Amino acid sequence: MECVLLGTGGMMPMNYRFLTALIVRHNGFNYLFDAGEATQIGFKATRVGVKALRVIAISHLHADHCLGIPGILMLRAQVEQPDPLTILGPPNIEKFVGQTRQILDFNINYDLHFIEWNPERPEVAYENDMLKIIWAPLKHSTFCLGYRLEEKPRPGKFELQAAQSLGIPPGPFYGKLQRGESITLPDGRQIRPEQVLGKPRRGRTIAFVVDTEPTPNIYRLCDKADIAFIEGMYLPDMADEARAKQHMTVDDGSRIAARSHVQRAVLIHISPRYKAGELHELEKIAKNRFDKAEMGVDFGRYHIALPD
Amino acid sequence: MECVLLGTGGMMPMNYRFLTALIVRHNGFNYLFDAGEATQIGFKATRVGVKALRVIAISHLHADHCLGIPGILMLRAQVEQPDPLTILGPPNIEKFVGQTRQILDFNINYDLHFIEWNPERPEVAYENDMLKIIWAPLKHSTFCLGYRLEEKPRPGKFELQAAQSLGIPPGPFYGKLQRGESITLPDGRQIRPEQVLGKPRRGRTIAFVVDTEPTPNIYRLCDKADIAFIEGMYLPDMADEARAKQHMTVDDGSRIAARSHVQRAVLIHISPRYKAGELHELEKIAKNRFDKAEMGVDFGRYHIALPD
Repeated sequence: MECVLLGTGGMMPMNYRFLTALIVRHNGFNYLFDAGEATQIGFKATRVGVKALRVIAISHLHADHCLGIPGILMLRAQVEQPDPLTILGPPNIEKFVGQTRQILDFNINYDLHFIEWNPERPEVAYENDMLKIIWAPLKHSTFCLGYRLEEKPRPGKFELQAAQSLGIPPGPFYGKLQRGESITLPDGRQIRPEQVLGKPRRGRTIAFVVDTEPTPNIYRLCDKADIAFIEGMYLPDMADEARAKQHMTVDDGSRIAARSHVQRAVLIHISPRYKAGELHELEKIAKNRFDKAEMGVDFGRYHIALPD
Repeated sequence: MECVLLGTGGMMPMNYRFLTALIVRHNGFNYLFDAGEATQIGFKATRVGVKALRVIAISHLHADHCLGIPGILMLRAQVEQPDPLTILGPPNIEKFVGQTRQILDFNINYDLHFIEWNPERPEVAYENDMLKIIWAPLKHSTFCLGYRLEEKPRPGKFELQAAQSLGIPPGPFYGKLQRGESITLPDGRQIRPEQVLGKPRRGRTIAFVVDTEPTPNIYRLCDKADIAFIEGMYLPDMADEARAKQHMTVDDGSRIAARSHVQRAVLIHISPRYKAGELHELEKIAKNRFDKAEMGVDFGRYHIALPD
C-alpha cells in the first residue's frame, strides 16, 4: 500500500506546484482523490498507471478539484479494454462530467459509474473485497466531502503448528483456510479457519481532507489513521483569511491530526503564495504543533507498512 | 510584436510538453490562440500577463484546445478591474464556457463577449484600432477554425524636409500629422497628412493553423505571413495515421508554409509520441522541405521585426 501525491497545491496549478491530488495504490488497483486541472500530467510524471484506476473520489465542484476529470477519462481511453471506473462525489458531479463529455464530444471505451453523496447514503461511499471508502461532509463555501479509505481487516496469521496438530495435510487446504474458507478433511472432520488462524489483523487507513474549516467530521475521518492527508493552506498569520474563505492553516491541520491520533500527517492544498523555498517555514510550524506532521511535496511517495 | 508559445503539444498535456497555445503580444495587449488543459501554467512560466489579455481565439471544441479556458478566466479574475475579454471560436464555445461556469460556480469580475463563427461572418472575427483577426474553417473531425492576425498598415514615415518646406512649425502639428490627422496652420492653409508622410507601411501578419488535413484555406490564412504557427504533428512515416485522424505531418506543414511564402514557419501540435530529444529528427525533415521552418518549443519567444 502506497500513496503518491500528484500535486499539493490549492486554488490553481502553478509552474512550481500542481493541484492537490492523491493516489492510493493497493493490491494492483489505484484510487484517486481529487482531480484538478493538469492532474493527468502527474500520472505521467509519477508513472502511476491509469488503467489500474478504479475510483476517482472528488471532494467538491470547484474547478481546482474536478476540472482534470475529463482529461483523465480520455487518457484512460487510450489503453485497451480498461475496466469500469467509479466516480464518487458531491451532487451534480455526474452532470458536470456528462455535459462536458457531450459538448467536447469525447468517447470513452469503458463504463462509468457515478455515486453522488446523498443524506441517505451517509457513510460508505464505495466498497469492494479489499477496502471501503467512507465520506462525510465538511464545511466549505460549497458542499464539500472528506474521505477515509479503510482497508478491510486481513485474516490472522496462519499458525502452522495448529494445522499440523490437527493433522491437516499441507497443500490446497492451507490456502483455503488462509483465505477464510472452511474445509472438510478426507476423514470427514470439518475445520473452521479460526482453528488455524491467529486473530484478524487490522486494515490500514488513509484520510483525505481538504477545503474546509475545522469541523467535527474531520476528526471522524482522520481517527487513528495510518496516514492523513489534510489541508494546511496557510501560515498562521493568514488565519483570518483562512477562516473567511473556509480553509485551514498548517496549525489547524497539524493540531487536528494530532488530536485524531494519526500515525502520520501530510499537509496539502498549499496556497500558491508560498514558493517551494518557503515550505520549510510551514513545516516548522506544523512540526511544532505535531511532530508527526510534514508538508506534502509533489510526486512524494508514502509507503504504509502492514501492521503486525 | 512578439509571439510566445505556452505549449507545442497535441492531444494531451505531458510532463515534457504542454498543449499548444500561442500568445501574440502587441502594443501592450495579449492575444491567446487555443487554451487546452494546463495552459494557465504557461502564463506563469513565461510571465505573460493575464490582465493584458484581450482576446482568446479557439480553434475547435476538443478538450486539448479549450479545457483550459475556465482556469484562465479564473486566473484573470484575480487581478483588479480587468478590461472586458472577447472569446472567438466555433459554434457552442459560449455554451461550453457558460455551462462550466455555472456548474463550477466561479465568478469573474469583467465582461465576457463571445463571437462564434457563422457562415454570415465569414472573414473578420475581431477588429480593433490596431489589428484584425481573420478566421476560416479547416478540415478536421470536428468543425475547426484557423486564424490570421493582421496588424493594420502603419502611417508612412514622417518626412521632415517636406514639413519644413511647407513651413510647418515643429511641435504638436507634427504629431497630429503623424497620427493621420489634417491640420490648419496659423496662416489658414490646410495640410493633409499625406503631404508630409511617406507611403503607408504594411502591418505584420501571424497565422495559427492546427488540427486539420491539408486544405485550401490554410494557404489563404498563411499567405505571405511574417510568421506562421502551423501543425506538424508527425514524422512522414505516420502519414497514414495523420490522414486518418485529419492531422498534418511536419512534411505537410513545412510544404504548405513554403508554398504560402511565409517568412518563418514554426511547426506545432507535436504528437506526444515524440520526446524532446527526438525533435531534431522532425526539424530535419521540416528544414529539408523548407529552410525557414523549425519545430516550436515550449516557452519559445519569436520577435517579429517592423517591416521597413
